Amino acid sequence: MRRVKLTIAYDGTNYAGYQVQPNGNTVQAEVETVLAKMHGQAMKVVASGRTDARVHAKGQVIHFDTHLSMPADRFVKALNAMLPDDILVCSAEEVDTSFHARYGAKRKEYRYFIRTDVDPFRRHHAVTVTYALDRERMRQALRSLVGTHDFTSFSVTKSEVVDRVRTIYEAELVEAGDEMYFRFVGSGFLYNQVRIMVGTLMEVGRGKYEPADVSRMLAAKDRRSAGITAPPHGLYLWNVNYKKVD
Amino acid sequence: MRRVKLTIAYDGTNYAGYQVQPNGNTVQAEVETVLAKMHGQAMKVVASGRTDARVHAKGQVIHFDTHLSMPADRFVKALNAMLPDDILVCSAEEVDTSFHARYGAKRKEYRYFIRTDVDPFRRHHAVTVTYALDRERMRQALRSLVGTHDFTSFSVTKSEVVDRVRTIYEAELVEAGDEMYFRFVGSGFLYNQVRIMVGTLMEVGRGKYEPADVSRMLAAKDRRSAGITAPPHGLYLWNVNYKKVD
Repeated sequence: MRRVKLTIAYDGTNYAGYQVQPNGNTVQAEVETVLAKMHGQAMKVVASGRTDARVHAKGQVIHFDTHLSMPADRFVKALNAMLPDDILVCSAEEVDTSFHARYGAKRKEYRYFIRTDVDPFRRHHAVTVTYALDRERMRQALRSLVGTHDFTSFSVTKSEVVDRVRTIYEAELVEAGDEMYFRFVGSGFLYNQVRIMVGTLMEVGRGKYEPADVSRMLAAKDRRSAGITAPPHGLYLWNVNYKKVD
Repeated sequence: MRRVKLTIAYDGTNYAGYQVQPNGNTVQAEVETVLAKMHGQAMKVVASGRTDARVHAKGQVIHFDTHLSMPADRFVKALNAMLPDDILVCSAEEVDTSFHARYGAKRKEYRYFIRTDVDPFRRHHAVTVTYALDRERMRQALRSLVGTHDFTSFSVTKSEVVDRVRTIYEAELVEAGDEMYFRFVGSGFLYNQVRIMVGTLMEVGRGKYEPADVSRMLAAKDRRSAGITAPPHGLYLWNVNYKKVD
């Protein structure tokens, strides 16, 4: 058996999320169905992590094992020919069987896109905020999130994860034409963590919280101390990195 | 009665076109339905022209007559609150009752977006061309289209329009990041004219026709002499201008 690593992009608008679920079509189910057709047997893929309904990916990474002998890069064309046009295989490469898309991920990058006007062409791909956002206040608040922290206040309480300590290596607010986006690079993120961080930052930006409140929220280790959960459709899993962090 | 001019944008992906038709939902029907709710009676709107199924608009102009006494700019918020989120009223102003969205239009601008890679996020909003396009050849060909010509070769034969002479004031190919777009400003355009011009230009770009062939195509006054009709989803009605051309 050989292991193949795929980097895929998808528009999450029409999916009930990445992971296979009893109700609703998912990105994982689409990929597994197409792989099953190619292989003549049921196939399982493993992703770096799930993404929620309506969340997008520019660089999700998945792996699967194959008995086919074709060069790994041929999977790009073969899969894209059969996948729906809102899922794209960007690259495929053969990897060592020790590679694991989930457990091997060292860094993940998420971006969250916000715009201040209503644009029907971006309605599924960026969140529109009609109130004024003070970028300097949001940048101040962002600095409190960088580093190694217990992110319990910024995760969903129902999650069963015990260790909620994560490291954020980089966090910035980037202005990009008509839009701005938050960019987070971290060791990994808890369920809904990016959306809760962004929702809180937007509340700092509009004046509901002070930038200094974010440190207090982290210290509280209580979801109720942080702000709202931002909507899913502004969020993109941008990149997953498997190289050791220096 | 007062006349109101609206500038609207819409994502044409989910519509059977602009104009009301027996089958399929249309942009016109959505706007008329919402206006009818506001007015308590059936309402008709007049547009600068129709757009086909899956064609978009950034600046379509329509007008309607109203007995309501509210300031015209209030229609922006009122209509947007009721319209689906793929149609946006950008502005509203009261105009003289001699204003006519269709007959008063002096210049229209269309843009046609092309990209050379596959991007699932732009699948409904730009056309992907995977073959090489020689931009210099397309720019040469573009120059033949500028000016006043009989565009019979670049229009659909079934159309009943008799006078097929139109003027193109400006035509250019613009590189915009990952994409390029053709931009046409003209006195008006025949049915499918922009899509046939773009389809032909792409065939010039890939080497099927020579740039000089475009003049011969115009002279032939025969649809069969020109190239293919480009797909609808790269096309945007960008702007309609009602001021006299100097």
